[in-house]
Amino acid sequence: MKIKISEIAEMVDGTIVGDNSLLISGVAKIEDAVAGDISFISNPKYAKFIDTTAASAVFVGKDFPETGITVIKSENPYFAFLTVLRKFHPPRKTVEAGIHQSAVIDESTQVGAEPSIGACVVVGKNCRIGDRVRLHPGVVIGDDVSIGSDTIIYPNVTVRENTTIGSKVIIHNGTVIGSDGFGFAREGQIYHKIPQVGTVIIEDNVEIGSNCTIDRATLGETRIKRGAKLDNLIQVAHNVVIGDDTVIAAQTGISGSTKIGKGVIIGGQVGFVGHIEIGDNTSIGAQSGVSKDLPPNSVYFGYPAKPIMQAKREEAGLRKLPDLIRKVSDIEKKLKKLLSGG
Amino acid sequence: MKIKISEIAEMVDGTIVGDNSLLISGVAKIEDAVAGDISFISNPKYAKFIDTTAASAVFVGKDFPETGITVIKSENPYFAFLTVLRKFHPPRKTVEAGIHQSAVIDESTQVGAEPSIGACVVVGKNCRIGDRVRLHPGVVIGDDVSIGSDTIIYPNVTVRENTTIGSKVIIHNGTVIGSDGFGFAREGQIYHKIPQVGTVIIEDNVEIGSNCTIDRATLGETRIKRGAKLDNLIQVAHNVVIGDDTVIAAQTGISGSTKIGKGVIIGGQVGFVGHIEIGDNTSIGAQSGVSKDLPPNSVYFGYPAKPIMQAKREEAGLRKLPDLIRKVSDIEKKLKKLLSGG
Amino acid sequence: MKIKISEIAEMVDGTIVGDNSLLISGVAKIEDAVAGDISFISNPKYAKFIDTTAASAVFVGKDFPETGITVIKSENPYFAFLTVLRKFHPPRKTVEAGIHQSAVIDESTQVGAEPSIGACVVVGKNCRIGDRVRLHPGVVIGDDVSIGSDTIIYPNVTVRENTTIGSKVIIHNGTVIGSDGFGFAREGQIYHKIPQVGTVIIEDNVEIGSNCTIDRATLGETRIKRGAKLDNLIQVAHNVVIGDDTVIAAQTGISGSTKIGKGVIIGGQVGFVGHIEIGDNTSIGAQSGVSKDLPPNSVYFGYPAKPIMQAKREEAGLRKLPDLIRKVSDIEKKLKKLLSGG
Repeated sequence: MKIKISEIAEMVDGTIVGDNSLLISGVAKIEDAVAGDISFISNPKYAKFIDTTAASAVFVGKDFPETGITVIKSENPYFAFLTVLRKFHPPRKTVEAGIHQSAVIDESTQVGAEPSIGACVVVGKNCRIGDRVRLHPGVVIGDDVSIGSDTIIYPNVTVRENTTIGSKVIIHNGTVIGSDGFGFAREGQIYHKIPQVGTVIIEDNVEIGSNCTIDRATLGETRIKRGAKLDNLIQVAHNVVIGDDTVIAAQTGISGSTKIGKGVIIGGQVGFVGHIEIGDNTSIGAQSGVSKDLPPNSVYFGYPAKPIMQAKREEAGLRKLPDLIRKVSDIEKKLKKLLSGG
Repeated sequence: MKIKISEIAEMVDGTIVGDNSLLISGVAKIEDAVAGDISFISNPKYAKFIDTTAASAVFVGKDFPETGITVIKSENPYFAFLTVLRKFHPPRKTVEAGIHQSAVIDESTQVGAEPSIGACVVVGKNCRIGDRVRLHPGVVIGDDVSIGSDTIIYPNVTVRENTTIGSKVIIHNGTVIGSDGFGFAREGQIYHKIPQVGTVIIEDNVEIGSNCTIDRATLGETRIKRGAKLDNLIQVAHNVVIGDDTVIAAQTGISGSTKIGKGVIIGGQVGFVGHIEIGDNTSIGAQSGVSKDLPPNSVYFGYPAKPIMQAKREEAGLRKLPDLIRKVSDIEKKLKKLLSGG
Repeated sequence: MKIKISEIAEMVDGTIVGDNSLLISGVAKIEDAVAGDISFISNPKYAKFIDTTAASAVFVGKDFPETGITVIKSENPYFAFLTVLRKFHPPRKTVEAGIHQSAVIDESTQVGAEPSIGACVVVGKNCRIGDRVRLHPGVVIGDDVSIGSDTIIYPNVTVRENTTIGSKVIIHNGTVIGSDGFGFAREGQIYHKIPQVGTVIIEDNVEIGSNCTIDRATLGETRIKRGAKLDNLIQVAHNVVIGDDTVIAAQTGISGSTKIGKGVIIGGQVGFVGHIEIGDNTSIGAQSGVSKDLPPNSVYFGYPAKPIMQAKREEAGLRKLPDLIRKVSDIEKKLKKLLSGG
């Protein structure tokens, strides 16, 4: 596929400075681009590549300085780039239309219009599968599950019984929705299983990475709200609530009944204890351990998590600690001498 | 389903104070309950909800003060609640009785009485599957595997060849039992694979969460003992032993040949180095890093893990450290002045 | 199987000291061995077991002192042991030769000589599967995937579309190769998905544990180079590169675009931020948090990761901190007294 650069400029509401007859045949990062590619510079740190890139053209900001190669100036060069990226790489359909003959779907289940259900998919009883849902090979859906329209579920995902998945949700490979919460009642040394009879609700536009585990509630619900994005290998325990448009990096774990606000940004490998609340729009650094409520609009980091400035001061102090110990020892000696009239 | 409160009181050996003609139609947490529900107050922290709950009745302790709504007093209100929870929510059967026609079971394998084996299950050669075992869709069992009676294995679990699963075991979705331990012998820069020819033994009444990985031993066995409970995304390396009735929260990892005692309580995201021993009934806080043997009946926390009181003192010290650095600098100045005869 | 000890000595280029007519019937660790077994002592720490082991013979180093039981002396007793271990436990074939009738393989896909493709395997369009490849039950391979010869893929693994797996690769159960990288562009509160149109390349002789997630690149490639070994539950984000012969322990996570050198040794539960570079042959301790480039041939540890000697000094300082605070308080008092002329 080749697209005229003038057509691209129009697409992104940008202005060409340079050769407006170029044909663009691909998209690439500035350091990887080859002739024919269009690339972008959004972060000033990458501006240096403008002189050496093999790209034929580059998206830049409106006030980018004059340069030797053809550029398209626009408000947001990164979004401009994404627009063209999507043009060159339209969403790929990775499971065929129709219902594969090896899929096993209970006859009590309703499947919407234009399904794409792959080989060896198993769907239980009384499910409602929306229009244009894509279930890839090896997906297992339990009984009484509802899945909204345009949702994509990748291979080997399990959705357990009596859970609800919204519309335009994406769930990546191997993830488990609705396994039992981790709940036991101790009697002497023995742990008795507490039935986990609640549900999981995944709202619209949520994306969940690979090999995550989202447990069902003990009673009530575990809920991931509209537009939240979860990376891979994340643990969400029973009765957790994750707010709208919250993003969570890989390998983070959230203990039971904790409520995460909306617009929260959580790094990788963070751990949350149970029964706490995290305010809206707060950010939490990677590998932090969060053991109490956090206020909204704040930045926390560390083990245990603390305001980032405090965490940095303490870390700086820690680096000076061996030296401090020597100083105090030295002071003690001098003081002793002084006090003994030395 | 509606149950008379008098019947419930009898079930839990409790005493009704209030309206003994009530009909109970459900169970819920005190803050979520609606009319018709029965709830419980076990933790004094929740006692305040007694005045505002919409529940029709509440389980409380024997010495709970007089209140406006109907209560059932008993020794252990939480256990009373669980009893009724189980009554209203009897265990749900999530895979149909019989053997689905799409299941592939080698003819050399023995399947016990009353099996429930779902669609697209694959079972290898020479296995022995106990009575009333439930294998959900997508489960893959290798050759020479033994599974005890009444064990439940959820969708997309893999049990590798030559491993042993006890009775009344529950294994949640996507978990892997018996993949190769991580063992290599280095020769120059190259790592040669050490054959992992040992086994895994999961004893009776063990429950293992979703997407865990339990590796087979290099030689000998990896063993999870009776009644141990593992949450999701837990790593158990080759030749690890986990004692009876030990509970482990999500995302914890245990390195090779480490032995965990019985009755141990382990938080989430804890890491254990290899070849250490953890004493019986010890507790280890979330995200701790355990790098040496721990004694029994103790409480450890931190990175590296240390006795909890020490960890708290050090953390308190760390908070005072920036201030301490200023103080020492101030002392140095004063002392210098003193010594110079200022 | 029984093998003459003289035959074993020849196999490993070793010298028998003791009874050279013994028959060896198995291999075991020194503390687990029974009569008939051969074991090894490589680590001096285990030398004490020589007097109590039930093994019939033991591999030892060339200068091992005289002892009561039969030994085979050789340059590297551990490698000698591995040689015999492989003899007694030849690689076990865990999926049958041929293509199981329930496997679903698109007719456009080329399958090499002597395949072993199990039940309920699904392979997409236009794939090239090398000679002697083993795909275990429940494996799902997307469209346009290339798999080299002699590669083994265990049950319930997913390999997503348009990825490349080399020869003699081993991928354990439940692992996901090629799921979408975690990339979103924020516009106000909303996150828009950035298409992840790159690929994953797994080079020859790589081994990847169970339930790992290896994401495809946004653009370009995620690459795991020749001979690298990954344990279980590891997260490899988009555009990461892992060098030749690097080993990574379980539950480690590597953020986007980070480049790990060759011969690097990484402990369990380590986290790497994105866009950093780790030099060749560097070692990083368990649970470390790596937030910047690390030089080659170094040893790092801690959260944040720092040179191991510094980390140890700081940890030692931390242990002295509560005491230091008391000392400084004491000094302040004395100094105050001095200054007030007391």
